[in-house]
Amino acid sequence: MAGRALPKFAAATLAFSLLAQDGGSLAEQYREVANRLINAALADQGGMEKLTFLCDRIGNRLSGSAALEQAVEWAAAQMRTDGLVNVVTPRVRVPHWVRGSESAAVVGPVNRPLSILGLGGSVSTPKRGVTAEVVPVSSFEDLAKKGRSTVQGKIVLFNVPYESYARTMVYRTAGPSRAARLGAVAALVRSITPVSIQSPHTGMLEYAEGSPRIPAAAVTIEDTLLIQRLVDAGNTVTVHLEMEAHTLPDADSANVIGELPGREKPEEVVVIGGHLDSWDVGAGAQDDGTGCITALEAAYLISKLGLHPRRTLRVAFWTNEENGGMGGQAYREWVGDAVRNHVAAIEMDGGAERPLGFGLTSNGDMQTMLSRASEIGSLLRRVDAGSVQSGGGGADIAPLMRDGVPGFAVRTVGTRYFEWHHTRADTVDKVNLEDLRANIAAMAVMAYVLADMPESLRQMPASTR
Amino acid sequence: MAGRALPKFAAATLAFSLLAQDGGSLAEQYREVANRLINAALADQGGMEKLTFLCDRIGNRLSGSAALEQAVEWAAAQMRTDGLVNVVTPRVRVPHWVRGSESAAVVGPVNRPLSILGLGGSVSTPKRGVTAEVVPVSSFEDLAKKGRSTVQGKIVLFNVPYESYARTMVYRTAGPSRAARLGAVAALVRSITPVSIQSPHTGMLEYAEGSPRIPAAAVTIEDTLLIQRLVDAGNTVTVHLEMEAHTLPDADSANVIGELPGREKPEEVVVIGGHLDSWDVGAGAQDDGTGCITALEAAYLISKLGLHPRRTLRVAFWTNEENGGMGGQAYREWVGDAVRNHVAAIEMDGGAERPLGFGLTSNGDMQTMLSRASEIGSLLRRVDAGSVQSGGGGADIAPLMRDGVPGFAVRTVGTRYFEWHHTRADTVDKVNLEDLRANIAAMAVMAYVLADMPESLRQMPASTR
Repeated sequence: MAGRALPKFAAATLAFSLLAQDGGSLAEQYREVANRLINAALADQGGMEKLTFLCDRIGNRLSGSAALEQAVEWAAAQMRTDGLVNVVTPRVRVPHWVRGSESAAVVGPVNRPLSILGLGGSVSTPKRGVTAEVVPVSSFEDLAKKGRSTVQGKIVLFNVPYESYARTMVYRTAGPSRAARLGAVAALVRSITPVSIQSPHTGMLEYAEGSPRIPAAAVTIEDTLLIQRLVDAGNTVTVHLEMEAHTLPDADSANVIGELPGREKPEEVVVIGGHLDSWDVGAGAQDDGTGCITALEAAYLISKLGLHPRRTLRVAFWTNEENGGMGGQAYREWVGDAVRNHVAAIEMDGGAERPLGFGLTSNGDMQTMLSRASEIGSLLRRVDAGSVQSGGGGADIAPLMRDGVPGFAVRTVGTRYFEWHHTRADTVDKVNLEDLRANIAAMAVMAYVLADMPESLRQMPASTR
Repeated sequence: MAGRALPKFAAATLAFSLLAQDGGSLAEQYREVANRLINAALADQGGMEKLTFLCDRIGNRLSGSAALEQAVEWAAAQMRTDGLVNVVTPRVRVPHWVRGSESAAVVGPVNRPLSILGLGGSVSTPKRGVTAEVVPVSSFEDLAKKGRSTVQGKIVLFNVPYESYARTMVYRTAGPSRAARLGAVAALVRSITPVSIQSPHTGMLEYAEGSPRIPAAAVTIEDTLLIQRLVDAGNTVTVHLEMEAHTLPDADSANVIGELPGREKPEEVVVIGGHLDSWDVGAGAQDDGTGCITALEAAYLISKLGLHPRRTLRVAFWTNEENGGMGGQAYREWVGDAVRNHVAAIEMDGGAERPLGFGLTSNGDMQTMLSRASEIGSLLRRVDAGSVQSGGGGADIAPLMRDGVPGFAVRTVGTRYFEWHHTRADTVDKVNLEDLRANIAAMAVMAYVLADMPESLRQMPASTR
């Protein structure tokens, strides 16, 4: 197919190069439909209503919880109501971690309650808890320098200031095992956030093979700095930590998948979505209720406007993104060889603050793809949401991207997302209606054009330039 | 004394009017010393060290707590160490409210834990708690409109968006009794803050005479909006509230007072300070550790530079500002007739964010006083902290102001103060060293010049204009 298409594509690429300066053919071809989609998105109420139901009535939904399975059932029914077909909920086995009760306090040289959230996957403390001196470290290098002689029998506190989520999260994921390897009996991790109002942020840890599994919890910036100041002033600081966290046998969950079948090339697929699971605090509103609902509402509006894209537009709500990634892997297995027909995947998992556009990653010809996607993006200038940049993707579509599917992420201003991320404050009130609508507009236009454009993005030949 | 001084003052006022345009005589007279004070303040370490000890080692200090009495002892000793004399701790009887354990949850139509903080002064619930339907109201008018037929036997939730602390706090202070008068069994109050990360803000309630005393707690913005959305969607929302709060017999506390005695007019007093007590969560860092420490450090720097103002500069740490105001009242009683010799009072109780200047309230000739104080303020241009505006004062100096003492408040940018106010997050990390130093500079210069200027601010005659 690629060989037969090549001459035609070369011509198209040349034409695109000439047309790009004045908006390009894709932009001209889809301007009217894009405006209809944007108009519908900017007046949309259903997105916020569905998000509110998911968050307020079902609530947070960690893998293994009854709420997640309630969300799966609701989502499948909602997809059908919204005009999607071939709605399926293929089973996915997921880890089943349970927080249990947990508490911590500084018990020397002063008594102070600590605001903590155990890290996902953590083991429990012994029943009466762990009481030990705290050793704050500023980096893995600092930890190594302090070494076993300092760390043995102690609680290591990773006090690493937030740089970005991507740069700082390694202390949460890898920190506990690094500390355990040097004999630490527990680990505390400064919450990964730029701003705190005594707010602990949970998230996954990853125990390393061969290291003792020690209990680990996130502490707030405030509590971290209190301990650091006390230690800096020459005190021996002692903390008592109690956690009942434990892991049960894997549980059944499911991805939720529905489609608008393609009118010409139903076997070719553009898949869009977010993850349905969340942490067990807050309501999973921005992480990632908005990703799911934005994708669903985009598909609903496309259907409602009577549009039937050339290719199949598929909406996927992946399960277990937060603590296992089994939903994304299961989806890849579920599509099997049909991964070759996935022409693009759009994952939205960064909240629905004001959208800026998309990030795009592909092992194909990035220059051409970026140009082409930017041409689609130009249709979103009305909502300032069409800038397409290199880089993007996400945990749930990573297995597809490894097999060559171009992966998009929705990009937003990201002003406050990480203040709410993995906290009790990730609730519906954080989602601004106008911003959600703009995200739905961006998703609808990008998804529709990717699914309908005459030549698929994936099959674009190398640029002739 | 005023009669005799009048002609001289009229001349001085005229001279001031002429001089004001090029900086004025006060500014010229005190420029060198002001710069020395500012230099010292901008290099100050002791302020932050003392604040850190107060907050980290002593911690929060509600009236009646052992911590508050520890703070009193520490403060008196610190004043002596810092060169103040006549250090006294006159006893003050204060209310003794104890929070006890407390919890709340939505129990219908969904189950959700609520983040609450009982309001200061609240009574407890019955031992097994209160379980009742919630009636959200948007204002007192809305409450009155709903009336007893709707409110009887219910929990009233005051869902009033933050406008300003001053405008919104009435729902916390007066709301519970207003609801009780219509038969409510408990009251919940949306936390008075512009920003929330699931953070409840406590504060005082005021039971009205003759109304039943019902338990009352602050809930977060997030939880308030959840309940409001559920109700708006047609649900009957039921909340379960358990509070062990209770009031014990009044306890002993104390104001802490120290002086730099005046070299010429020791009987005339400029009093500066903040309140030593705090709520029983967080560490009382911005509310009001910074007020106390800024005043103390200003006096310390004046003393350290070998300055001996004409009048007595007195530092006062008032007790029980938060839930009774007994410290400010007791101070007024303690000074007795000497209130006539108080030439100015400066209260700092709005945190130590970047200072802008001062607010001034007096029943004297405001125009002249503002001009004169602004002349002193002009000495603070280096730190952009010298703007003097009409309006200001504070709870602890209100009894002095009622007797004619000109009252100053320190004004800051106030960007985030109310995000931390009365929460677990009011901790030392919220205080920026450079901002604290600028506050100390502003306090030192204003206090010193008020205490040293040839004619006291209070005795300024009416403007001749």
